[in-house]
Amino acid sequence: MSTKPNIAISIGDINGVGIEIALKAHEEIKQLCNPIYCVSQNILTQAAALLHTQLPKDTQLPKDMQLREVFGDCNIEVGKTTAQSGRYSYDSFMRAVALCENREADAVVTLPIHKEAWMMAGIEYKGHTDLLRKHFKKEAIMMLGCPQMFVALFTEHIPLKDVAAALNFERLETFLLDLHNSIQKEKIAVLGLNPHAGDNGVLGDEEQIITRAIESVNAKVGFEQFCGPVVPDVAFAPYFRKNYNYFVAMYHDQGLAPLKALYFDESVNISLNLPIIRTSVDHGTAFDIAYRNRANTLSYINAIKSALEFTNK
Amino acid sequence: MSTKPNIAISIGDINGVGIEIALKAHEEIKQLCNPIYCVSQNILTQAAALLHTQLPKDTQLPKDMQLREVFGDCNIEVGKTTAQSGRYSYDSFMRAVALCENREADAVVTLPIHKEAWMMAGIEYKGHTDLLRKHFKKEAIMMLGCPQMFVALFTEHIPLKDVAAALNFERLETFLLDLHNSIQKEKIAVLGLNPHAGDNGVLGDEEQIITRAIESVNAKVGFEQFCGPVVPDVAFAPYFRKNYNYFVAMYHDQGLAPLKALYFDESVNISLNLPIIRTSVDHGTAFDIAYRNRANTLSYINAIKSALEFTNK
Repeated sequence: MSTKPNIAISIGDINGVGIEIALKAHEEIKQLCNPIYCVSQNILTQAAALLHTQLPKDTQLPKDMQLREVFGDCNIEVGKTTAQSGRYSYDSFMRAVALCENREADAVVTLPIHKEAWMMAGIEYKGHTDLLRKHFKKEAIMMLGCPQMFVALFTEHIPLKDVAAALNFERLETFLLDLHNSIQKEKIAVLGLNPHAGDNGVLGDEEQIITRAIESVNAKVGFEQFCGPVVPDVAFAPYFRKNYNYFVAMYHDQGLAPLKALYFDESVNISLNLPIIRTSVDHGTAFDIAYRNRANTLSYINAIKSALEFTNK
Repeated sequence: MSTKPNIAISIGDINGVGIEIALKAHEEIKQLCNPIYCVSQNILTQAAALLHTQLPKDTQLPKDMQLREVFGDCNIEVGKTTAQSGRYSYDSFMRAVALCENREADAVVTLPIHKEAWMMAGIEYKGHTDLLRKHFKKEAIMMLGCPQMFVALFTEHIPLKDVAAALNFERLETFLLDLHNSIQKEKIAVLGLNPHAGDNGVLGDEEQIITRAIESVNAKVGFEQFCGPVVPDVAFAPYFRKNYNYFVAMYHDQGLAPLKALYFDESVNISLNLPIIRTSVDHGTAFDIAYRNRANTLSYINAIKSALEFTNK
C-alpha cells in the first residue's frame, strides 16, 4: 500500500478548464500523492473526447484515475454558464469535503467553479471559501501565494472605503492568533494600512492598532513571530522579501497586486483555520480557452504541493 | 559646442548619499548630458576627501564638473540631520530650478533631501514636489517607475480611509487631461479603486466614476488613450503589463507596492504637469550608508535618462 497522502480533487466547472488541467497534470501529480477525482466516468469520457485524448479502449479512462462518482445528469457545454454545471461543481466539491471529513482524504484541492453558474443553480454561497466558512462555522483565513511569497488577507472582498473601519484590535488579534495556529514557526510580516505606514500618524493612525495587536499576539505565542507594521510599498521589495515568506495584507489589492505582479502563474489559494486543508488554483474557469489544450497546469500542481505541505504542518 | 541637453543637478542632503552618487556616476552621465551641479567647490572637496577620491591637484575637483555655487557656510556631518544641511539642500534645489526657469538647463534632477532637516531649517514644504506645486501654482503629477513600467498617482500622501472620498469625476477628469498633456501618445491603463474593480458594483461603485472620466477624456483627446477601470490585482501581472507601460493608480500603495516589488532599484520619481521637467531618484538620503562607497547609482542614472526622455516629449 502506498503511503502517499490522499488528495480529493474537486473538479470545478465542467464547462471550463478544470478537467483539462486535471487530465494533463495527472501523470505528474500521481508521483506526489494519490489523487481521488470527484467526477463521474461519463463526464470524464466526454471531456477526454473533446480534448481528443486517446483513451484505453477497455476502460475509456486513464487506467489509474481513482474516481468518486458525482451523481446527476450532466453534459459538457464548452464555455457556457449553466445551472447544470453549477450544480455539478457544487456536488463535486461537497463530495471532496466529505472525503476529508470521513478521513478518506487528507486535503481537498479545488479546480475553479463559476460563481454565476452556482447562482443559476440556486446555490447561495459566493464561492468555495464562503461555503467552507458556513459549513464549518469557522472564520477561514484566505492566503494566496507560492513558496517564495504567501499573503494572508485580513480583509477580503469589501469596498476599499470600508477597509479602515474593518480594522480593530480584537479582530486583528484574533486573526493573527488564528494564523499562528496554521503557521506556527515561520516569521510573518504584517503590513501597515496607510502610505508610509502612517508616517508617525501624519498619514493615518490605524498603525497604532496594528502595533498593539502584534505586541499582544507575540506575547501570547511566546516569540517575535509577527513583525510590523511594515511600510506597505516596500514590503515586497527584494531586500525585504528575502527575509520573509509570509505576509499579512490589510486588504485585498495591497497584497494581491504585488503577488500577481511577481508570481501570477505560480500562485495558489489556501484556506487556513478550518478543520480540513483546502487549496485551490488561483485562476478562474477560463471559458474562453476551455477544451483547447491551452490551459496552464502550474497553479494546479502548486496547489497540490501546498496541500501536501500544509497537511504536514 | 555640445548639443547635449543641460541637466541641473540638485545635490540633495550633503550628509547623505547624494554627493557620493553624483561623483560615482559622473563619468557615465556626462556621456548622456551636460550635468550642472548645484554645489559649491568647498562641499565637493570635503565630500571627495571623505570618499578618499583622488582629486587632480590643481583644481581639487574632477576637471570637467561644471558647478554653480550654492552660498552659505556648511560642513558635511556624515549621517546627521542638521538645519545647515537642510538649508543647503533647499538652496541647491532652488538654484537648479532657477537654472531651468532662465533656460540655462533643460531639466532638474534631484538627489534626496531629508524632510526633517528641511523642518529644522524652518522650510515649510513637505518635499520637492510640494515645493514645486506651490512655486509654480500648478497641480504637479507624481509619477514613479522606470521605462518598463511607470505609475502616476491620482492620490498621494493621504490616509487610506480618505482615498474613496477623494475620487470624483471632475478631479479625475482634470488629472487624466493633465497627464495626457505630459504623455501624449502612449496608451495608459487606469486602475479601478475596489477589489475586482468593484465586481459590477457588488464591492463598491466608484468604478462608475472612473469609467465616465475615461470616456470623457478619450473623447476630448481624440483617441482611446486611457483604458480601464482595470482590475487592480491583475493590472501588473505579466500578461497585462506586456501591453502597457503607463498606469494610473488611484492611491499610493496600489501602484507603488507592485512597482517596488518589480523594480525597486531602477525606479525614479518624475514630476509632470509643471513648466519644468523634474526627475528624482526614488530613494532617501540613506544616512546609514553615507560616505561608505556603498550607494547604488542605478536610480540616479535612470533619473537622468528619464529627464532626457521627457525633455524630448
